[in-house]
Amino acid sequence: MMLVNGEVREEISAQDRGLHFGDGVFETVAVDTARALCLDRHIRRLGEGCRRLAIAPPAAATLEEECARICDGVERGVLKIMVTRGVGGRGYAPGEGASPTRIVARYPWPAYPASARSRGVAVRVCGTRLGRNARLAGIKHLNRLEQVLARSEEDASGCAEGIMLDEDGRVIEGVMSNVFMRHGRVLTTPDLSACGVAGIMRELVLESAATLEGIEPRVGAMSVDELSSADECFLTNSLIGIWPINRLQGQAIEIGPLAHTLQSLLVESGAMTRD
Amino acid sequence: MMLVNGEVREEISAQDRGLHFGDGVFETVAVDTARALCLDRHIRRLGEGCRRLAIAPPAAATLEEECARICDGVERGVLKIMVTRGVGGRGYAPGEGASPTRIVARYPWPAYPASARSRGVAVRVCGTRLGRNARLAGIKHLNRLEQVLARSEEDASGCAEGIMLDEDGRVIEGVMSNVFMRHGRVLTTPDLSACGVAGIMRELVLESAATLEGIEPRVGAMSVDELSSADECFLTNSLIGIWPINRLQGQAIEIGPLAHTLQSLLVESGAMTRD
Repeated sequence: MMLVNGEVREEISAQDRGLHFGDGVFETVAVDTARALCLDRHIRRLGEGCRRLAIAPPAAATLEEECARICDGVERGVLKIMVTRGVGGRGYAPGEGASPTRIVARYPWPAYPASARSRGVAVRVCGTRLGRNARLAGIKHLNRLEQVLARSEEDASGCAEGIMLDEDGRVIEGVMSNVFMRHGRVLTTPDLSACGVAGIMRELVLESAATLEGIEPRVGAMSVDELSSADECFLTNSLIGIWPINRLQGQAIEIGPLAHTLQSLLVESGAMTRD
Repeated sequence: MMLVNGEVREEISAQDRGLHFGDGVFETVAVDTARALCLDRHIRRLGEGCRRLAIAPPAAATLEEECARICDGVERGVLKIMVTRGVGGRGYAPGEGASPTRIVARYPWPAYPASARSRGVAVRVCGTRLGRNARLAGIKHLNRLEQVLARSEEDASGCAEGIMLDEDGRVIEGVMSNVFMRHGRVLTTPDLSACGVAGIMRELVLESAATLEGIEPRVGAMSVDELSSADECFLTNSLIGIWPINRLQGQAIEIGPLAHTLQSLLVESGAMTRD
Protein backbone atom coordinates (compact mmCIF):
# COMPACT_ATOMS: atom_id res chain seq x y z
CA MET A 1 0.00 0.00 0.00
CA MET A 2 1.24 3.44 -0.87
CA LEU A 3 0.10 7.04 -0.43
CA VAL A 4 1.31 9.72 -2.85
CA ASN A 5 0.54 13.16 -1.44
CA GLY A 6 -2.08 11.53 0.76
CA GLU A 7 -3.88 9.56 -1.98
CA VAL A 8 -3.73 5.81 -2.52
CA ARG A 9 -1.75 5.56 -5.75
CA GLU A 10 0.92 3.44 -7.39
CA GLU A 11 2.39 5.99 -9.80
CA ILE A 12 4.07 9.37 -9.79
CA SER A 13 4.73 11.93 -12.51
CA ALA A 14 7.59 10.94 -14.80
CA GLN A 15 8.70 14.60 -14.45
CA ASP A 16 9.39 14.23 -10.74
CA ARG A 17 12.81 15.53 -9.74
CA GLY A 18 13.22 12.53 -7.46
CA LEU A 19 13.45 10.42 -10.62
CA HIS A 20 15.50 12.82 -12.74
CA PHE A 21 18.12 13.83 -10.17
CA GLY A 22 17.54 11.83 -6.98
CA ASP A 23 16.44 15.21 -5.63
CA GLY A 24 14.91 14.18 -2.32
CA VAL A 25 15.26 12.29 0.96
CA PHE A 26 13.80 9.18 2.57
CA GLU A 27 13.34 7.33 5.84
CA THR A 28 13.04 3.62 6.58
CA VAL A 29 11.05 2.84 9.72
CA ALA A 30 10.29 -0.43 11.53
CA VAL A 31 6.60 -1.15 12.14
CA ASP A 32 5.73 -3.33 15.13
CA THR A 33 2.13 -4.10 16.15
CA ALA A 34 0.82 -1.17 14.07
CA ARG A 35 3.33 1.28 15.59
CA ALA A 36 6.06 3.05 13.58
CA LEU A 37 9.08 2.92 15.91
CA CYS A 38 10.84 6.22 16.69
CA LEU A 39 8.65 8.00 14.16
CA ASP A 40 9.29 11.37 15.82
CA ARG A 41 13.04 10.98 15.29
CA HIS A 42 12.56 9.87 11.68
CA ILE A 43 10.29 12.81 10.92
CA ARG A 44 12.79 15.18 12.53
CA ARG A 45 15.68 13.78 10.45
CA LEU A 46 13.56 13.88 7.27
CA GLY A 47 12.89 17.55 7.98
CA GLU A 48 16.59 18.26 8.56
CA GLY A 49 17.47 16.55 5.26
CA CYS A 50 14.80 18.59 3.47
CA ARG A 51 16.14 21.81 4.96
CA ARG A 52 19.71 20.99 3.90
CA LEU A 53 18.46 20.48 0.34
CA ALA A 54 16.14 23.53 0.58
CA ILE A 55 13.04 21.39 0.06
CA ALA A 56 9.97 22.47 2.06
CA PRO A 57 9.47 19.68 4.61
CA PRO A 58 5.96 18.24 5.00
CA ALA A 59 4.08 19.05 8.21
CA ALA A 60 4.83 16.48 10.92
CA ALA A 61 1.11 16.07 11.65
CA THR A 62 0.43 15.19 8.00
CA LEU A 63 3.18 12.57 8.00
CA GLU A 64 2.01 11.15 11.33
CA GLU A 65 -1.53 10.79 10.05
CA GLU A 66 -0.41 9.14 6.80
CA CYS A 67 1.97 6.79 8.59
CA ALA A 68 -0.82 5.77 10.95
CA ARG A 69 -3.03 4.92 7.95
CA ILE A 70 -0.26 2.87 6.37
CA CYS A 71 0.60 1.05 9.60
CA ASP A 72 -2.99 0.27 10.60
CA GLY A 73 -3.31 -3.43 11.41
CA VAL A 74 0.29 -4.24 10.44
CA GLU A 75 1.84 -6.78 12.81
CA ARG A 76 5.40 -6.36 11.49
CA GLY A 77 6.50 -4.40 8.44
CA VAL A 78 8.57 -1.58 7.00
CA LEU A 79 7.41 1.97 6.44
CA LYS A 80 9.22 4.06 3.85
CA ILE A 81 8.72 7.80 3.73
CA MET A 82 10.06 9.74 0.77
CA VAL A 83 9.99 13.45 0.00
CA THR A 84 11.19 14.83 -3.34
CA ARG A 85 11.40 18.41 -4.58
CA GLY A 86 8.42 17.55 -6.80
CA VAL A 87 7.65 17.93 -10.48
CA GLY A 88 10.09 20.13 -12.33
CA GLY A 89 11.52 20.99 -15.72
CA ARG A 90 14.49 19.43 -17.48
CA GLY A 91 17.30 21.47 -15.94
CA TYR A 92 19.10 21.18 -12.63
CA ALA A 93 17.78 24.49 -11.27
CA PRO A 94 14.90 23.92 -8.86
CA GLY A 95 11.94 25.87 -10.29
CA GLU A 96 10.12 28.50 -8.31
CA GLY A 97 7.28 27.19 -6.18
CA ALA A 98 7.61 23.51 -7.02
CA SER A 99 5.45 21.50 -4.67
CA PRO A 100 7.26 18.58 -2.97
CA THR A 101 6.09 15.03 -3.59
CA ARG A 102 5.36 13.01 -0.45
CA ILE A 103 5.29 9.22 -0.58
CA VAL A 104 4.41 6.97 2.35
CA ALA A 105 4.62 3.26 1.55
CA ARG A 106 4.48 -0.08 3.31
CA TYR A 107 6.70 -3.07 2.60
CA PRO A 108 6.95 -6.57 4.05
CA TRP A 109 9.42 -7.21 6.86
CA PRO A 110 12.68 -8.51 5.36
CA ALA A 111 13.76 -12.13 5.76
CA TYR A 112 16.72 -11.43 8.06
CA PRO A 113 18.71 -14.37 9.46
CA ALA A 114 16.97 -15.42 12.70
CA SER A 115 20.13 -15.68 14.79
CA ALA A 116 21.66 -12.38 13.64
CA ARG A 117 20.96 -10.46 16.85
CA SER A 118 22.23 -13.20 19.15
CA ARG A 119 25.03 -14.89 17.23
CA GLY A 120 26.00 -12.08 14.88
CA VAL A 121 26.69 -11.89 11.16
CA ALA A 122 29.67 -12.12 8.84
CA VAL A 123 30.68 -8.97 6.97
CA ARG A 124 33.07 -8.21 4.14
CA VAL A 125 34.72 -5.01 2.93
CA CYS A 126 33.15 -3.68 -0.28
CA GLY A 127 35.22 -2.73 -3.30
CA THR A 128 32.87 0.18 -4.06
CA ARG A 129 34.01 3.28 -2.18
CA LEU A 130 32.03 6.25 -0.89
CA GLY A 131 32.80 9.62 -2.45
CA ARG A 132 33.37 12.45 0.02
CA ASN A 133 31.02 15.43 -0.14
CA ALA A 134 30.40 17.52 2.96
CA ARG A 135 27.29 19.15 1.43
CA LEU A 136 25.55 15.76 1.22
CA ALA A 137 27.18 13.92 4.13
CA GLY A 138 24.88 12.50 6.77
CA ILE A 139 21.70 13.07 4.73
CA LYS A 140 19.56 10.04 3.79
CA HIS A 141 19.07 11.38 0.25
CA LEU A 142 17.98 9.62 -2.93
CA ASN A 143 21.42 9.50 -4.61
CA ARG A 144 22.17 5.91 -3.64
CA LEU A 145 24.08 4.44 -6.58
CA GLU A 146 27.11 3.79 -4.40
CA GLN A 147 24.99 1.52 -2.18
CA VAL A 148 23.40 -0.17 -5.21
CA LEU A 149 26.84 -0.93 -6.67
CA ALA A 150 28.21 -2.11 -3.33
CA ARG A 151 25.23 -4.41 -2.80
CA SER A 152 25.64 -5.73 -6.37
CA GLU A 153 29.25 -6.80 -5.89
CA GLU A 154 29.72 -10.49 -6.39
CA ASP A 155 29.94 -12.10 -3.00
CA ALA A 156 30.39 -15.85 -2.81
CA SER A 157 30.98 -15.63 0.94
CA GLY A 158 27.30 -15.05 1.71
CA CYS A 159 28.03 -12.14 4.04
CA ALA A 160 24.99 -10.40 5.50
CA GLU A 161 26.45 -6.91 5.11
CA GLY A 162 29.31 -5.05 3.44
CA ILE A 163 31.51 -2.43 5.07
CA MET A 164 32.08 0.67 2.93
CA LEU A 165 35.25 2.75 2.99
CA ASP A 166 35.71 6.27 1.70
CA GLU A 167 38.11 7.07 -1.12
CA ASP A 168 40.95 7.33 1.41
CA GLY A 169 40.25 3.90 2.91
CA ARG A 170 38.57 5.01 6.14
CA VAL A 171 35.68 2.87 7.41
CA ILE A 172 32.46 4.89 7.09
CA GLU A 173 29.44 2.60 7.35
CA GLY A 174 27.74 -0.58 6.17
CA VAL A 175 25.83 -0.62 2.89
CA MET A 176 22.54 -0.43 4.82
CA SER A 177 23.81 0.19 8.35
CA ASN A 178 26.14 2.14 10.62
CA VAL A 179 29.09 0.47 12.29
CA PHE A 180 30.47 0.56 15.83
CA MET A 181 33.59 -0.94 17.43
CA ARG A 182 34.57 -1.22 21.09
CA HIS A 183 38.17 -1.14 22.28
CA GLY A 184 38.05 -1.52 26.06
CA ARG A 185 35.78 1.23 27.41
CA VAL A 186 35.77 3.22 24.19
CA LEU A 187 32.89 2.69 21.77
CA THR A 188 33.60 4.35 18.40
CA THR A 189 31.46 4.98 15.34
CA PRO A 190 32.84 6.74 12.26
CA ASP A 191 32.65 10.47 11.78
CA LEU A 192 30.13 11.17 9.00
CA SER A 193 31.02 14.77 8.21
CA ALA A 194 32.34 13.92 4.72
CA CYS A 195 30.15 10.97 3.70
CA GLY A 196 27.74 8.36 5.03
CA VAL A 197 24.22 8.37 6.40
CA ALA A 198 23.69 9.31 10.05
CA GLY A 199 21.22 6.61 11.10
CA ILE A 200 18.52 6.94 13.75
CA MET A 201 19.66 3.68 15.41
CA ARG A 202 23.24 5.04 15.45
CA GLU A 203 21.96 8.12 17.28
CA LEU A 204 20.03 5.95 19.76
CA VAL A 205 23.05 3.71 20.39
CA LEU A 206 25.28 6.73 21.04
CA GLU A 207 22.71 8.10 23.49
CA SER A 208 22.14 4.75 25.26
CA ALA A 209 25.85 3.98 25.49
CA ALA A 210 26.44 7.33 27.18
CA THR A 211 24.18 6.21 30.04
CA LEU A 212 26.22 3.05 30.69
CA GLU A 213 28.86 2.95 33.40
CA GLY A 214 32.30 2.23 31.98
CA ILE A 215 31.48 3.00 28.35
CA GLU A 216 32.78 6.09 26.56
CA PRO A 217 31.02 6.60 23.24
CA ARG A 218 32.83 8.70 20.69
CA VAL A 219 32.63 9.66 17.02
CA GLY A 220 35.92 9.52 15.15
CA ALA A 221 38.06 7.92 12.50
CA MET A 222 38.01 4.13 12.03
CA SER A 223 40.30 1.89 9.98
CA VAL A 224 39.71 -1.69 8.84
CA ASP A 225 42.60 -2.76 11.10
CA GLU A 226 41.02 -1.09 14.12
CA LEU A 227 37.69 -2.71 13.29
CA SER A 228 39.20 -6.19 12.99
CA SER A 229 41.20 -5.81 16.22
CA ALA A 230 38.26 -4.51 18.27
CA ASP A 231 37.01 -6.24 21.42
CA GLU A 232 33.64 -6.32 19.71
CA CYS A 233 31.90 -4.59 16.85
CA PHE A 234 28.35 -4.32 15.60
CA LEU A 235 26.04 -2.89 12.97
CA THR A 236 22.94 -0.78 13.51
CA ASN A 237 19.91 0.33 11.55
CA SER A 238 16.26 0.96 12.25
CA LEU A 239 15.15 -2.45 11.00
CA ILE A 240 17.91 -4.81 12.12
CA GLY A 241 18.38 -2.99 15.43
CA ILE A 242 21.86 -4.13 16.48
CA TRP A 243 23.71 -7.01 14.83
CA PRO A 244 27.04 -8.09 16.33
CA ILE A 245 29.74 -8.78 13.74
CA ASN A 246 31.11 -12.31 14.16
CA ARG A 247 33.42 -12.41 11.14
CA LEU A 248 35.19 -9.72 9.09
CA GLN A 249 36.74 -10.67 5.74
CA GLY A 250 36.69 -14.30 6.87
CA GLN A 251 38.43 -13.64 10.19
CA ALA A 252 36.47 -14.48 13.36
CA ILE A 253 35.62 -11.63 15.75
CA GLU A 254 34.50 -12.13 19.34
CA ILE A 255 30.90 -11.19 20.10
CA GLY A 256 31.04 -8.94 23.12
CA PRO A 257 28.56 -8.10 25.84
CA LEU A 258 27.89 -4.46 24.92
CA ALA A 259 25.90 -5.27 21.77
CA HIS A 260 23.54 -7.45 23.82
CA THR A 261 23.25 -4.90 26.62
CA LEU A 262 22.33 -2.18 24.12
CA GLN A 263 19.85 -4.49 22.38
CA SER A 264 18.06 -5.08 25.71
CA LEU A 265 17.98 -1.38 26.56
CA LEU A 266 16.61 -0.38 23.17
CA VAL A 267 14.03 -3.15 22.96
CA GLU A 268 12.94 -2.18 26.47
CA SER A 269 12.55 1.48 25.51
CA GLY A 270 10.47 0.57 22.45
CA ALA A 271 13.04 1.86 19.96
CA MET A 272 13.84 -1.58 18.51
CA THR A 273 11.65 -4.53 17.50
CA ARG A 274 11.65 -7.44 19.95
CA ASP A 275 13.38 -9.77 17.48
CA MET B 1 5.41 14.54 -25.11
CA MET B 2 6.82 11.49 -23.44
CA LEU B 3 7.09 7.78 -24.15
CA VAL B 4 7.47 5.35 -21.25
CA ASN B 5 8.52 1.95 -22.56
CA GLY B 6 7.17 2.99 -25.95
CA GLU B 7 3.75 4.19 -24.78
CA VAL B 8 2.59 7.78 -24.55
CA ARG B 9 2.36 8.29 -20.79
CA GLU B 10 3.03 10.93 -18.15
CA GLU B 11 3.59 8.67 -15.16
CA ILE B 12 5.82 5.86 -13.97
CA SER B 13 5.58 3.37 -11.13
CA ALA B 14 6.37 4.90 -7.75
CA GLN B 15 8.41 1.70 -7.15
CA ASP B 16 10.87 2.53 -9.92
CA ARG B 17 14.50 2.26 -8.81
CA GLY B 18 15.24 5.44 -10.74
CA LEU B 19 13.17 7.29 -8.14
CA HIS B 20 14.29 5.35 -5.06
CA PHE B 21 18.05 5.28 -5.72
CA GLY B 22 18.77 7.30 -8.88
CA ASP B 23 19.52 3.87 -10.32
CA GLY B 24 19.81 4.71 -14.01
CA VAL B 25 21.35 6.89 -16.72
CA PHE B 26 20.23 9.61 -19.10
CA GLU B 27 21.13 11.53 -22.25
CA THR B 28 20.31 15.07 -23.32
CA VAL B 29 20.20 15.54 -27.09
CA ALA B 30 19.70 18.62 -29.28
CA VAL B 31 16.88 18.39 -31.84
CA ASP B 32 17.23 20.50 -34.97
CA THR B 33 14.71 20.34 -37.83
CA ALA B 34 13.31 17.01 -36.58
CA ARG B 35 16.76 15.46 -36.30
CA ALA B 36 18.35 14.31 -33.00
CA LEU B 37 21.98 15.43 -33.33
CA CYS B 38 24.68 12.79 -32.78
CA LEU B 39 22.04 10.29 -31.70
CA ASP B 40 24.35 7.35 -32.48
CA ARG B 41 26.95 8.69 -30.03
CA HIS B 42 24.33 9.35 -27.37
CA ILE B 43 22.88 5.84 -27.71
CA ARG B 44 26.38 4.38 -27.51
CA ARG B 45 27.20 6.31 -24.32
CA LEU B 46 23.82 5.41 -22.80
CA GLY B 47 24.64 1.76 -23.46
CA GLU B 48 28.09 2.11 -21.89
CA GLY B 49 26.56 3.73 -18.79
CA CYS B 50 24.01 0.91 -18.56
CA ARG B 51 26.73 -1.70 -18.82
CA ARG B 52 28.81 -0.05 -16.09
CA LEU B 53 25.75 -0.18 -13.82
CA ALA B 54 24.83 -3.71 -15.02
CA ILE B 55 21.50 -2.52 -16.43
CA ALA B 56 20.42 -4.23 -19.67
CA PRO B 57 20.65 -1.47 -22.31
CA PRO B 58 17.67 -0.99 -24.64
CA ALA B 59 18.12 -2.00 -28.29
CA ALA B 60 19.50 0.87 -30.36
CA ALA B 61 16.81 0.33 -33.01
CA THR B 62 14.06 0.72 -30.37
CA LEU B 63 15.57 3.97 -29.11
CA GLU B 64 16.05 5.28 -32.65
CA GLU B 65 12.44 4.58 -33.52
CA GLU B 66 11.14 6.19 -30.32
CA CYS B 67 13.38 9.23 -30.72
CA ALA B 68 12.16 9.67 -34.29
CA ARG B 69 8.54 9.65 -33.04
CA ILE B 70 9.36 12.23 -30.38
CA CYS B 71 11.31 14.47 -32.77
CA ASP B 72 8.78 14.34 -35.59
CA GLY B 73 7.97 17.88 -36.74
CA VAL B 74 10.12 19.53 -34.06
CA GLU B 75 11.96 22.58 -35.39
CA ARG B 76 14.20 23.01 -32.33
CA GLY B 77 13.96 21.17 -29.04
CA VAL B 78 15.59 18.92 -26.49
CA LEU B 79 15.29 15.14 -26.36
CA LYS B 80 15.91 13.42 -23.05
CA ILE B 81 16.42 9.67 -22.92
CA MET B 82 16.41 7.94 -19.57
CA VAL B 83 16.93 4.29 -18.66
CA THR B 84 16.46 3.03 -15.11
CA ARG B 85 16.90 -0.45 -13.68
CA GLY B 86 13.10 -0.60 -13.47
CA VAL B 87 10.60 -1.46 -10.77
CA GLY B 88 12.14 -3.07 -7.72
CA GLY B 89 11.68 -3.79 -4.04
CA ARG B 90 12.68 -1.65 -1.09
CA GLY B 91 16.30 -2.74 -0.70
CA TYR B 92 19.46 -1.71 -2.55
CA ALA B 93 19.99 -5.14 -4.14
CA PRO B 94 18.84 -5.18 -7.77
CA GLY B 95 16.23 -7.93 -8.00
CA GLU B 96 16.54 -10.78 -10.44
CA GLY B 97 15.08 -10.12 -13.85
CA ALA B 98 13.90 -6.56 -13.25
CA SER B 99 12.92 -5.02 -16.55
CA PRO B 100 14.50 -1.60 -17.24
CA THR B 101 12.29 1.45 -17.63
CA ARG B 102 12.87 3.46 -20.80
CA ILE B 103 11.74 7.07 -21.04
CA VAL B 104 12.02 9.23 -24.16
CA ALA B 105 10.78 12.78 -23.67
CA ARG B 106 10.73 16.09 -25.48
CA TYR B 107 11.33 19.50 -23.93
CA PRO B 108 11.38 23.05 -25.29
CA TRP B 109 14.70 24.54 -26.37
CA PRO B 110 16.14 26.54 -23.45
CA ALA B 111 16.26 30.34 -23.50
CA TYR B 112 20.05 30.65 -23.78
CA PRO B 113 21.63 34.11 -24.13
CA ALA B 114 21.70 34.90 -27.87
CA SER B 115 25.28 36.15 -27.94
CA ALA B 116 26.74 33.30 -25.88
CA ARG B 117 28.44 31.52 -28.79
CA SER B 118 29.96 34.66 -30.26
CA ARG B 119 30.72 36.88 -27.28
CA GLY B 120 30.96 34.26 -24.55
CA VAL B 121 29.57 33.96 -21.06
CA ALA B 122 30.65 34.79 -17.52
CA VAL B 123 31.28 31.88 -15.16
CA ARG B 124 31.87 31.56 -11.43
CA VAL B 125 33.38 28.83 -9.28
CA CYS B 126 30.75 26.88 -7.33
CA GLY B 127 31.04 26.29 -3.61
CA THR B 128 29.52 22.81 -3.99
CA ARG B 129 32.26 20.27 -4.71
CA LEU B 130 32.16 16.99 -6.63
CA GLY B 131 32.82 13.83 -4.63
CA ARG B 132 35.36 11.46 -6.17
CA ASN B 133 34.19 7.96 -7.06
CA ALA B 134 35.90 6.03 -9.84
CA ARG B 135 33.04 3.54 -10.10
CA LEU B 136 30.64 6.31 -11.13
CA ALA B 137 33.02 8.74 -12.83
CA GLY B 138 32.22 9.70 -16.41
CA ILE B 139 28.72 8.16 -16.35
CA LYS B 140 25.71 10.40 -16.95
CA HIS B 141 23.78 8.72 -14.14
CA LEU B 142 20.73 9.86 -12.21
CA ASN B 143 22.55 10.76 -8.96
CA ARG B 144 22.71 14.49 -9.64
CA LEU B 145 22.25 16.16 -6.27
CA GLU B 146 25.69 17.78 -6.52
CA GLN B 147 24.59 19.57 -9.70
CA VAL B 148 21.23 20.52 -8.16
CA LEU B 149 22.99 22.05 -5.13
CA ALA B 150 25.58 23.82 -7.31
CA ARG B 151 22.87 25.28 -9.53
CA SER B 152 20.92 26.38 -6.43
CA GLU B 153 23.79 28.40 -4.99
CA GLU B 154 22.93 32.03 -4.60
CA ASP B 155 24.51 33.90 -7.45
CA ALA B 156 23.98 37.63 -7.65
CA SER B 157 26.52 37.88 -10.49
CA GLY B 158 24.15 36.41 -13.06
CA CYS B 159 26.75 33.99 -14.40
CA ALA B 160 25.57 31.61 -17.12
CA GLU B 161 27.45 28.63 -15.70
CA GLY B 162 29.33 27.47 -12.63
CA ILE B 163 32.66 25.65 -12.58
CA MET B 164 32.77 22.67 -10.25
CA LEU B 165 35.88 21.51 -8.41
CA ASP B 166 36.50 18.16 -6.81
CA GLU B 167 37.11 17.79 -3.08
CA ASP B 168 40.82 18.50 -3.66
CA GLY B 169 40.16 21.72 -5.56
CA ARG B 170 40.84 20.47 -9.10
CA VAL B 171 38.66 21.87 -11.89
CA ILE B 172 36.43 19.04 -13.19
CA GLU B 173 33.55 20.46 -15.23
CA GLY B 174 30.73 22.98 -15.38
CA VAL B 175 27.41 22.24 -13.68
CA MET B 176 25.88 21.34 -17.06
CA SER B 177 28.97 21.36 -19.28
CA ASN B 178 32.56 20.29 -19.77
CA VAL B 179 35.38 22.81 -19.71
CA PHE B 180 38.42 23.37 -21.95
CA MET B 181 41.39 25.76 -21.72
CA ARG B 182 44.07 26.58 -24.29
CA HIS B 183 47.60 27.55 -23.33
CA GLY B 184 49.43 28.19 -26.61
CA ARG B 185 49.07 25.05 -28.73
CA VAL B 186 47.86 22.86 -25.88
CA LEU B 187 44.12 22.42 -25.44
CA THR B 188 43.31 20.75 -22.12
CA THR B 189 40.12 19.34 -20.66
CA PRO B 190 40.02 17.77 -17.20
CA ASP B 191 40.60 14.10 -16.58
CA LEU B 192 37.26 12.54 -15.54
CA SER B 193 38.50 9.26 -14.13
CA ALA B 194 37.47 10.15 -10.56
CA CYS B 195 34.39 12.32 -11.12
CA GLY B 196 32.48 14.29 -13.72
CA VAL B 197 30.39 13.47 -16.78
CA ALA B 198 32.19 12.70 -20.05
CA GLY B 199 30.06 14.72 -22.48
CA ILE B 200 29.43 13.90 -26.13
CA MET B 201 30.38 17.46 -27.18
CA ARG B 202 33.60 17.11 -25.17
CA GLU B 203 34.39 13.96 -27.14
CA LEU B 204 33.61 15.72 -30.45
CA VAL B 205 35.77 18.72 -29.52
CA LEU B 206 38.70 16.46 -28.60
CA GLU B 207 38.34 14.67 -31.95
CA SER B 208 37.96 17.86 -34.00
CA ALA B 209 40.84 19.62 -32.26
CA ALA B 210 43.09 16.68 -33.09
CA THR B 211 42.54 17.38 -36.80
CA LEU B 212 43.68 21.01 -36.49
CA GLU B 213 47.22 22.02 -37.35
CA GLY B 214 49.01 23.51 -34.36
CA ILE B 215 46.61 22.27 -31.69
CA GLU B 216 47.50 19.51 -29.25
CA PRO B 217 44.45 18.28 -27.37
CA ARG B 218 45.07 16.55 -24.10
CA VAL B 219 43.20 15.29 -21.06
CA GLY B 220 44.78 16.15 -17.73
CA ALA B 221 44.65 18.05 -14.48
CA MET B 222 43.34 21.63 -14.41
CA SER B 223 43.49 24.23 -11.63
CA VAL B 224 41.44 27.41 -11.28
CA ASP B 225 44.68 29.41 -11.70
CA GLU B 226 45.50 27.61 -14.95
CA LEU B 227 41.97 28.22 -16.19
CA SER B 228 42.08 31.93 -15.42
CA SER B 229 45.51 32.37 -17.00
CA ALA B 230 44.61 30.48 -20.21
CA ASP B 231 44.86 32.08 -23.66
CA GLU B 232 41.23 31.11 -24.07
CA CYS B 233 38.74 28.78 -22.44
CA PHE B 234 35.30 27.48 -23.29
CA LEU B 235 32.42 25.29 -22.19
CA THR B 236 30.79 22.47 -24.15
CA ASN B 237 27.61 20.46 -24.03
CA SER B 238 25.23 18.93 -26.55
CA LEU B 239 22.75 21.81 -26.38
CA ILE B 240 24.94 24.90 -26.03
CA GLY B 241 27.58 23.53 -28.39
CA ILE B 242 30.63 25.64 -27.49
CA TRP B 243 30.47 28.78 -25.34
CA PRO B 244 33.64 30.82 -24.91
CA ILE B 245 34.24 31.99 -21.33
CA ASN B 246 34.63 35.77 -21.22
CA ARG B 247 34.82 36.24 -17.45
CA LEU B 248 35.84 33.98 -14.56
CA GLN B 249 35.01 35.05 -11.01
CA GLY B 250 34.64 38.60 -12.27
CA GLN B 251 37.99 38.68 -14.05
CA ALA B 252 37.90 39.22 -17.84
CA ILE B 253 39.27 36.45 -20.08
CA GLU B 254 40.18 36.90 -23.73
CA ILE B 255 37.94 35.11 -26.24
CA GLY B 256 40.28 33.23 -28.53
CA PRO B 257 39.98 31.96 -32.07
CA LEU B 258 39.92 28.22 -31.35
CA ALA B 259 36.42 28.22 -29.85
CA HIS B 260 35.06 29.86 -33.01
CA THR B 261 37.02 27.54 -35.31
CA LEU B 262 35.65 24.50 -33.50
CA GLN B 263 32.12 25.92 -33.56
CA SER B 264 32.32 26.26 -37.36
CA LEU B 265 33.69 22.75 -37.82
CA LEU B 266 31.05 21.16 -35.62
CA VAL B 267 28.13 23.13 -37.07
CA GLU B 268 29.40 22.18 -40.52
CA SER B 269 29.53 18.49 -39.63
CA GLY B 270 25.98 18.56 -38.26
CA ALA B 271 27.05 17.81 -34.69
CA MET B 272 26.00 21.22 -33.33
CA THR B 273 22.92 23.40 -33.87
CA ARG B 274 23.45 26.41 -36.15
CA ASP B 275 22.91 28.90 -33.34
